[in-house]
Amino acid sequence: MGASLTPADIAAYRIFLDQLAEAAAEVTLPLFKRPLEVVNKGRKLDIDYDPVTEADQQAEKVIRQHINATYPTHNILGEEWGAETNCAADETPWTWVLDPIDGTRAYICGIPTWGTLVALNNGTQALVGMLDQPYLKERYIGTPNGSFLNGEKITCRPCTDLTQATVSTTDPTQFFATDKDVAAFNRVAGKARLVRNGYDCYAYAMVAAGFIDVVIESGLEAYDIQALIPIIEGAGGVVSDWRGESVLQGGQVVASATPELHQQVLSLLQG
Amino acid sequence: MGASLTPADIAAYRIFLDQLAEAAAEVTLPLFKRPLEVVNKGRKLDIDYDPVTEADQQAEKVIRQHINATYPTHNILGEEWGAETNCAADETPWTWVLDPIDGTRAYICGIPTWGTLVALNNGTQALVGMLDQPYLKERYIGTPNGSFLNGEKITCRPCTDLTQATVSTTDPTQFFATDKDVAAFNRVAGKARLVRNGYDCYAYAMVAAGFIDVVIESGLEAYDIQALIPIIEGAGGVVSDWRGESVLQGGQVVASATPELHQQVLSLLQG
Repeated sequence: MGASLTPADIAAYRIFLDQLAEAAAEVTLPLFKRPLEVVNKGRKLDIDYDPVTEADQQAEKVIRQHINATYPTHNILGEEWGAETNCAADETPWTWVLDPIDGTRAYICGIPTWGTLVALNNGTQALVGMLDQPYLKERYIGTPNGSFLNGEKITCRPCTDLTQATVSTTDPTQFFATDKDVAAFNRVAGKARLVRNGYDCYAYAMVAAGFIDVVIESGLEAYDIQALIPIIEGAGGVVSDWRGESVLQGGQVVASATPELHQQVLSLLQG
Repeated sequence: MGASLTPADIAAYRIFLDQLAEAAAEVTLPLFKRPLEVVNKGRKLDIDYDPVTEADQQAEKVIRQHINATYPTHNILGEEWGAETNCAADETPWTWVLDPIDGTRAYICGIPTWGTLVALNNGTQALVGMLDQPYLKERYIGTPNGSFLNGEKITCRPCTDLTQATVSTTDPTQFFATDKDVAAFNRVAGKARLVRNGYDCYAYAMVAAGFIDVVIESGLEAYDIQALIPIIEGAGGVVSDWRGESVLQGGQVVASATPELHQQVLSLLQG
């Protein structure tokens, strides 16, 4: 499982995450709901329009400066500026994984379901993670000691039956890479009580806070998911890929409110 | 066009809408992001899960009490408690059209894209309308003198070309009644720069505020759309049904940021 964190470490990282969130928000919030210059980055998948804003790039620079100043031997992996290795070969490869504005398309549409995502992993596991939504003034932090919304403990809803569950995905028509993926999602959606889409990373926060029970997505990058893993797990939920394996490097993601529900969803995804 | 409003009327109604919004928010906001008992109302369309919350019903009662006390000869049409006729046969049938929580599914998922919708129509036109989102502290009011967000004037984006436009619908997989409707939507979506879904009534507010350019929906009721018409029109946009006719009674709705864009979208919807 790699290196772990002491209670003192966790306390220190929670304070540090608050600092990162405040610094990023100083960049992202003034430009939210303002006209923005949008450039087309051209990512993989069938997404032919993935705006990257100046806010996104500048916010990541600010976060990197804070990390380099405070934890100079820690590595960094970010959406906008790539990987940076600072640890010695024989040290634990503590790595900060960043997406300063996850949900840039929501951001440019004026919808506050985007978030600033920051995770710290030890090379094999994401141990702490943050989703900050500064327009809503909601900061979700997940740790080995539990998950918190603005400092208050949060837990997933005790939903153990898919027929009672709310299931969410970002976009059922564009987000899945293949028809097989769409069919897998539809097997789950067809059994769920309620299906909602369009909520980006905020959907995972709603799983941790007890308002949504399952999120299913495909084609995620490491920086899209790592911050969310400790938040979901610290609230009692489960995150894995569609086969039940670690999703640290992204790919096909499923997050569930309970282990029982997760098993039901995995069975249907595997068909 | 029916009876119109004087500037003094408009000023008075703006103050009254503020009062309605505050009264409704006292009911809706304390229950948002709280566990709620949800009952299945069973509406038409292929929506087999349409939660109606106590908050929805109680908020409409409170709004109705305010209207009856202040405008006792005005009619009321609400989602939860139906139609109420108070005007004499020879009077202008001023009618308040209410949906206290439009977007109840977002509401129960903890997502702040729901809104309290209130319109006033003169029998043929909705002349003033409000979308209040109390969690975001955003109140959109549309009048014949312009549209306002928290008292500040707002305008649609001057987008006149669909290839540059952001198009939104609530749910491309569930919201359209027929495959023909889905195909019509897809003709528009296929030409748009960006397609987003899942934003409920808040998508129309984003058109009026200049962040989304087109909203297309189907199967709306009068109380789902009337409040949004003055907000879009007061910001310079256009709202009609898919044939370009009045959408006062609901049905297939299209709202666009500019008349030019609206014509392009109507042509594609009509196939």
